[in-house]
Amino acid sequence: MLGVCYYPEHWPRERWAEDARRMRALGLTYVRIGEFAWSAIEPDPGRFTWDWLDAAIETLGEAGLKVVLGTPTATPPKWLIDQHPDILAYDIQGRPRKFGSRRHYSFSSRVYLEEARRIVTLLAQRYGPNPFVAGWQTDNEYGCHDTTRSYGPEDLRAFRLWLQARYGSIEALNQAWGNVFWSMTYRAFGEIDLPNQTVTEANPAHWLDFYRFSSDQVAAFNRMQAEILRQYAPEKFIVHNFMGYTPDFDHFKLAQDLDIAGWDSYPLGFTDMDVLPCTAEEKLRYAHTGHPDMAAFHHDLYRGVKPRWWVMEQQPGPVNWAHHNPSPAPGMVRLWTWEALAHGAEVVSYFRWRQFPQAQEQFHAGLNRPDFEPDLGFFEAQQVAQELSRLSLPQSSPAPVALVFDYEADWVFRIQPQGQEFVYRDLVWHFYQALRSLGLDVDVVPPGADLHPYRLVVVPSLPILRKAALQAFKEAPGAVVFGPRTGSKTEALGIPAQLPPGALQALLPLKVTRVESWRPGLSETLTWQGQSWPVGVWKEWIESSLTPVATFADGRGAIYQHHHRHYLAFWPGREFLQSYLAEVAQSLGLPIQPLPEGLRMRRRGPWVFAFNYTDRPQTAPTPQGARFVLGGPTVAPYDLSIWVEE
Amino acid sequence: MLGVCYYPEHWPRERWAEDARRMRALGLTYVRIGEFAWSAIEPDPGRFTWDWLDAAIETLGEAGLKVVLGTPTATPPKWLIDQHPDILAYDIQGRPRKFGSRRHYSFSSRVYLEEARRIVTLLAQRYGPNPFVAGWQTDNEYGCHDTTRSYGPEDLRAFRLWLQARYGSIEALNQAWGNVFWSMTYRAFGEIDLPNQTVTEANPAHWLDFYRFSSDQVAAFNRMQAEILRQYAPEKFIVHNFMGYTPDFDHFKLAQDLDIAGWDSYPLGFTDMDVLPCTAEEKLRYAHTGHPDMAAFHHDLYRGVKPRWWVMEQQPGPVNWAHHNPSPAPGMVRLWTWEALAHGAEVVSYFRWRQFPQAQEQFHAGLNRPDFEPDLGFFEAQQVAQELSRLSLPQSSPAPVALVFDYEADWVFRIQPQGQEFVYRDLVWHFYQALRSLGLDVDVVPPGADLHPYRLVVVPSLPILRKAALQAFKEAPGAVVFGPRTGSKTEALGIPAQLPPGALQALLPLKVTRVESWRPGLSETLTWQGQSWPVGVWKEWIESSLTPVATFADGRGAIYQHHHRHYLAFWPGREFLQSYLAEVAQSLGLPIQPLPEGLRMRRRGPWVFAFNYTDRPQTAPTPQGARFVLGGPTVAPYDLSIWVEE
Amino acid sequence: MLGVCYYPEHWPRERWAEDARRMRALGLTYVRIGEFAWSAIEPDPGRFTWDWLDAAIETLGEAGLKVVLGTPTATPPKWLIDQHPDILAYDIQGRPRKFGSRRHYSFSSRVYLEEARRIVTLLAQRYGPNPFVAGWQTDNEYGCHDTTRSYGPEDLRAFRLWLQARYGSIEALNQAWGNVFWSMTYRAFGEIDLPNQTVTEANPAHWLDFYRFSSDQVAAFNRMQAEILRQYAPEKFIVHNFMGYTPDFDHFKLAQDLDIAGWDSYPLGFTDMDVLPCTAEEKLRYAHTGHPDMAAFHHDLYRGVKPRWWVMEQQPGPVNWAHHNPSPAPGMVRLWTWEALAHGAEVVSYFRWRQFPQAQEQFHAGLNRPDFEPDLGFFEAQQVAQELSRLSLPQSSPAPVALVFDYEADWVFRIQPQGQEFVYRDLVWHFYQALRSLGLDVDVVPPGADLHPYRLVVVPSLPILRKAALQAFKEAPGAVVFGPRTGSKTEALGIPAQLPPGALQALLPLKVTRVESWRPGLSETLTWQGQSWPVGVWKEWIESSLTPVATFADGRGAIYQHHHRHYLAFWPGREFLQSYLAEVAQSLGLPIQPLPEGLRMRRRGPWVFAFNYTDRPQTAPTPQGARFVLGGPTVAPYDLSIWVEE
Repeated sequence: MLGVCYYPEHWPRERWAEDARRMRALGLTYVRIGEFAWSAIEPDPGRFTWDWLDAAIETLGEAGLKVVLGTPTATPPKWLIDQHPDILAYDIQGRPRKFGSRRHYSFSSRVYLEEARRIVTLLAQRYGPNPFVAGWQTDNEYGCHDTTRSYGPEDLRAFRLWLQARYGSIEALNQAWGNVFWSMTYRAFGEIDLPNQTVTEANPAHWLDFYRFSSDQVAAFNRMQAEILRQYAPEKFIVHNFMGYTPDFDHFKLAQDLDIAGWDSYPLGFTDMDVLPCTAEEKLRYAHTGHPDMAAFHHDLYRGVKPRWWVMEQQPGPVNWAHHNPSPAPGMVRLWTWEALAHGAEVVSYFRWRQFPQAQEQFHAGLNRPDFEPDLGFFEAQQVAQELSRLSLPQSSPAPVALVFDYEADWVFRIQPQGQEFVYRDLVWHFYQALRSLGLDVDVVPPGADLHPYRLVVVPSLPILRKAALQAFKEAPGAVVFGPRTGSKTEALGIPAQLPPGALQALLPLKVTRVESWRPGLSETLTWQGQSWPVGVWKEWIESSLTPVATFADGRGAIYQHHHRHYLAFWPGREFLQSYLAEVAQSLGLPIQPLPEGLRMRRRGPWVFAFNYTDRPQTAPTPQGARFVLGGPTVAPYDLSIWVEE
Repeated sequence: MLGVCYYPEHWPRERWAEDARRMRALGLTYVRIGEFAWSAIEPDPGRFTWDWLDAAIETLGEAGLKVVLGTPTATPPKWLIDQHPDILAYDIQGRPRKFGSRRHYSFSSRVYLEEARRIVTLLAQRYGPNPFVAGWQTDNEYGCHDTTRSYGPEDLRAFRLWLQARYGSIEALNQAWGNVFWSMTYRAFGEIDLPNQTVTEANPAHWLDFYRFSSDQVAAFNRMQAEILRQYAPEKFIVHNFMGYTPDFDHFKLAQDLDIAGWDSYPLGFTDMDVLPCTAEEKLRYAHTGHPDMAAFHHDLYRGVKPRWWVMEQQPGPVNWAHHNPSPAPGMVRLWTWEALAHGAEVVSYFRWRQFPQAQEQFHAGLNRPDFEPDLGFFEAQQVAQELSRLSLPQSSPAPVALVFDYEADWVFRIQPQGQEFVYRDLVWHFYQALRSLGLDVDVVPPGADLHPYRLVVVPSLPILRKAALQAFKEAPGAVVFGPRTGSKTEALGIPAQLPPGALQALLPLKVTRVESWRPGLSETLTWQGQSWPVGVWKEWIESSLTPVATFADGRGAIYQHHHRHYLAFWPGREFLQSYLAEVAQSLGLPIQPLPEGLRMRRRGPWVFAFNYTDRPQTAPTPQGARFVLGGPTVAPYDLSIWVEE
Repeated sequence: MLGVCYYPEHWPRERWAEDARRMRALGLTYVRIGEFAWSAIEPDPGRFTWDWLDAAIETLGEAGLKVVLGTPTATPPKWLIDQHPDILAYDIQGRPRKFGSRRHYSFSSRVYLEEARRIVTLLAQRYGPNPFVAGWQTDNEYGCHDTTRSYGPEDLRAFRLWLQARYGSIEALNQAWGNVFWSMTYRAFGEIDLPNQTVTEANPAHWLDFYRFSSDQVAAFNRMQAEILRQYAPEKFIVHNFMGYTPDFDHFKLAQDLDIAGWDSYPLGFTDMDVLPCTAEEKLRYAHTGHPDMAAFHHDLYRGVKPRWWVMEQQPGPVNWAHHNPSPAPGMVRLWTWEALAHGAEVVSYFRWRQFPQAQEQFHAGLNRPDFEPDLGFFEAQQVAQELSRLSLPQSSPAPVALVFDYEADWVFRIQPQGQEFVYRDLVWHFYQALRSLGLDVDVVPPGADLHPYRLVVVPSLPILRKAALQAFKEAPGAVVFGPRTGSKTEALGIPAQLPPGALQALLPLKVTRVESWRPGLSETLTWQGQSWPVGVWKEWIESSLTPVATFADGRGAIYQHHHRHYLAFWPGREFLQSYLAEVAQSLGLPIQPLPEGLRMRRRGPWVFAFNYTDRPQTAPTPQGARFVLGGPTVAPYDLSIWVEE
């Protein structure tokens, strides 16, 4: 199904009905509104102007649209900030981050928690029972603009309480953090500061707990809203619109309080801005399409965050916020929409109905231009709507491959990379691209997820290996490929007593006795099955009774396999992974389909999709005599084909 | 005429008379003094030591020199700052910018306005009637060291008053800025903050008004001084020494209170520091000469700022403040001086008489070395003085080409580039270099200037197109070439209701329906008259009934012409402009003279100048049998020739 | 002799005896402890837990080890910071640098001086007489993490007093600094601010005095400790562990209060982080060994700082703090140890006994792994211990070459580079590398040191030339090669009245009338003895009656020689220096031995050492029939040979 984001407060009331009519005519089902409208609802403290919102919902609903109503907590009004300046977040240099854009609040501000509770309660009470309101969106893009962590007095206060709750006694904390080092011992929780602005790096355990705390605060803020909404609107769904790769808080945890995971898909901006890093050459090649794995990775990630998921904001044309903002190639808005559906999206909702000719996002396209004419994206959305109207999408089925993704792993390596190029995001991205270029569908799952369904599991790295995750790995019937530094850390970010990979030694009898990180340009040759690969960035020295599957030039083992488990003792590049995972898949009898540059496949039930991200026609990797649901054996530029897997 | 900057307070009183004698002997007419001398004049609050300044003026005047006396407001003494710390400006991060160098004041400090008024009044009263004082310089290099905008409490206070005066009601401001977006609505002017330190970008309309306000504050500060000087020294001229490209305030506006626009010409430092951007190759090639259009552009700009203009500070040797400070090639000091005169300068004044061997600028050369010997620049100045003594410069005449330059345009694109490489300065620079490499003289004029004199007008871009400018374009009899984004913005920085180019549609029937910005390396081929050009950075999608003059590879129109008006729907590179403007000029019968690398021409009345910025002789593009005023048909390295246009 | 750093507080008391036994068995003599243990000693204000330290010293001492006891002043406990937040240092932006790592104190904090005095006195009283305590280390790595200079209220207060003591009257200061420039005149010392945060650059004389003051504060802090230790432990030695190139304070001055100069040698991290700058190619080539002159330069520097010197911390494996942390090549820990001894080290002490698996340095290797097994470095240390046990090291003798090194020179050029690439460290490094690649041993000495012993003296630059240094140069019997900008500054950082090289004109009759600095890529050809060299960065224009030894392309003199003194009027590159210094050495009859890439030599008495920093065997430059003490005529990769010079 399709939807759109709409801001009735931006447009004259006279136009609403016509807008609603045209939305329906276009084939849209959902309309999201209200998520930045606090000032419009409560222009003065305690004075409410519900009438316009009542009318907007009525107008949209009467036209046959289902409303997703946003809580407006991402934009507290200026009068509220002036009354309570302690709402503001503080940056890492200890300065308040001022009013004047959005997300100007700390998740730890006590007064803001109360104020958010107040406005959400009022909204929920008023619109909870409204039949046109199908569901609720909490806030907007948590964590965007680096807003997860804040460094102010309210944050310090809450952090100390969080630590107290976690450790019980200050002795336990000192022990866990190793504070005997450098005389960092504390006598009371009230002595602990935030870890920013220290003379040299602060204790990494201190940082990691601050990251965890900050992540928990986001979840708690969302839970507060969800509880109110469930109380007053018990039958409506709750969604949040997450952003592109924003690892600062644990989305799996937060989503426990949601029904649907939404995410905001801007493939061009994400490619320009390295949300997932692209080479210089890819940034040029895919400037008008986005990297072919960019949206797909997020689809798979957010499906892992919550089985029900939406694209809450779909890029409909050029945007305003990247360093460079090209136009999507003709057909891409349709392609992106179909790709989301192929990956299992329930709804794809375009951002936004009409380009607003003022303020920060005036250069951000909508389905309609600011002169009220339809823009190019409108027609592509229309085509999808028409296609959908004559097709019935099958149910999604699980992928054969799982990628274990861990937010905490991102934090651990960010805090303590030990080698500048060791970035968790990049490692995950290498694995994901390798799998996708082999034509494999991938489920992104959290550590501890049930791995029984999967024939192949990849674990780019999981430094802190908790019991549930270990148990899941033990029980996994498929092959499991572990990346470097898995099991290398205790929960308190120390080195395990038995050395890395710590608890993983129960599954793989090997020990990492030394690690080294290398500057770009420094590499060693790895030999595997007679082939040579230059490897850099990271190398581990392994002690093991196992015979290595691959070796470094110095004779040390680089890859170990024990039964169906594999361990990579180095930083694996994308090309290497493509070969290695192909070999593993083939050894499992898992069919692969190596794809040409810019072509991607995805299955939804019996349907197979092929997406062409290039400017030239490509041949779909179809079996002889395939039955096509859409398109045909040749996939036109920026187009797709769908056929039925027999 | 020639002059020099002199600091009597740096040298023993015994030396002044000898210095004055040598200045006259060298052939200098003007001497500027006093602009940093506040501490020397008023060493303690209210205690004045006028005697030295009386004596210095007397000594210089008696020697036959005309004194330009600077107001010392660029350097308030420490005791004044200690009494009133709120004089200090605040940086964009909200920190006070401390005493210890210069320009340490905010233009919005109420107490500083009073203090500046006090010292200027005292000076004006004392020296206004002095016959040796020919004129006054206000302050020094407004805006230098990023001092136009300040972010402190005094600035906030003044900004709110400025907004109130501009909008009258807060509703009008909310409407103009589009504050309904992201709940940015204000209830009173007192709620508005400065736009720095927001969580993500602030409203661009907020920024633009802050830029306008900051520019106005500079003009108001200068006007305050000018009014005092006019009161007590009604017959003396008033000048300010502007800096190289410092777009933060509107020089056209400020100059309304001046008689003469001065500017400070440092071709080597400007080339090293990208005051106007040079390629890596140009920075090496012109390291000892400055880029051949660097000084020229500023001459033409400041002649546009005020018909009477001076080079107030002319680089006489190596300077101290660039990242690299090479020596001018032998002859360049003379060449620069002549070039200024060719462009119409009334006076060229060298900075400075003698290198002061202490403090910040001790590595900055003067005409004399710190050991009291003449430095190399001395002899080149002497040569010019001798040449001038036997020549009589003709009057300047207007150029055939106008370049419309707009400070506000710089602000608009700086605030909202939409593509990282869209820099107004660079666009202007492309047009200017293209015209100059065709041997064309250029007048730089503000929007709204009378365009009747010009056969060709170029408008690199003018996003906010006000009535006067539109009217001038309507009436312009010559060809007018508009660059991209002209007319693309309303006065409040919104998108015009009829889409860009807004009001320009009255002259050019076309509509920009989409824009895109591209990263370096991304380009498309433009075809014009059978030739192909790669274009990047910016592309506009045009709807028009006109047949395009040039097209993009995708068939869309890239250049449109309607009668004698042209519109470029892309970012034009220098090479393209050279070809295109040559073609336009030729179609108008305007003679062009494509020049070899490093050779530049300029006319002053009937005299034609050729300047050789290279290290090899070049042939002057003279007609057969030309009569030479200076030099001859071959221009030696770092030399010039002048001949008479018959 | 060998030693190790040990942290008994990190490990269970039960393990200490076993650790001590193993240290002795390994062949270690010294063990350093206690330097970060304040919290462990005084967990609450005034409550002391001496017992563990008593026991640790007893245990180590009884095992036959000599203890070096560190004062714990680098890490004041949190309770002390909370009682006295004015202990904290302030960064250059004026923000306090918080607790949470180490070195979080200002050298100018009055309360911290008292607190440091208190804890040092208590330690000295208690352990001064302890027979197992052989000596004391003051604090830890002064200046590390940019902690020499602090910008808080306590620093300002102390700076004003320091200035008052230096200048006596404010008039003298104004005169010395040239404060008449830009109205910077002060009326009282209480008006002077710190030089940070000014609008544009502050007066360089202001900065230089602030640098001097900051250096003096470090020395005063150390002196306070040394005096207490001498009072209570009069027979024990005092050492400090300096860091790799940390020019912010004058080590020569500080070391006047020490008996031994220690330094912490981390060749791999220093190479990765450009402690002395390496080319991109060298960083790859020497990633696993460190640059072959990196440790050597520091050995020679710290031997100049104090004749008795130790390597207090020797890298034993990968570290944690560089951007990239590779493993030392096999053999390098032994090679580094022997190299230190070859340069005259009394003791080489490894950092650290065992890798602590928590907190900031958990990735820093030790001689033992965190699982209590010996790590690779253990075995290399063991080999050295065994080799040493059967050899008797001869006494060191002075080198034939002196390099005059000046901390103040580093400050002067840092404050006022005049060309971005003019970095004193780099210039020194060029000279040093050139000498070492010629097989020459080098003594690094301070200005004013007795130069009689040396046949060749190089002075990379000495901008401020004081009487003692001039006198030493006058008396130097050997050749003296002066680099650019020598003598170019007065003590107050002005230009000398007779122009540069100032007082040096007494020895070299020449005058620098102009200087220029060039961007990378800009160069001129220097011709010397028929050979051409491209030179860049810096050029001086010389007036002299001497005939230049080498000339620039423009005919100006580039090198001048007068008797046995040479002056280089440009920035000399390493390759040029190699040729030039070879020529000078040969003209003196000083034998040179040009060495292949990666091979280095050093003499200790009659022993000659050859160190192979490469991965291939190299032939030792031995005379026929040399008698080998260690190794043989072929030096294996990462190995050394020692033979006796007959």
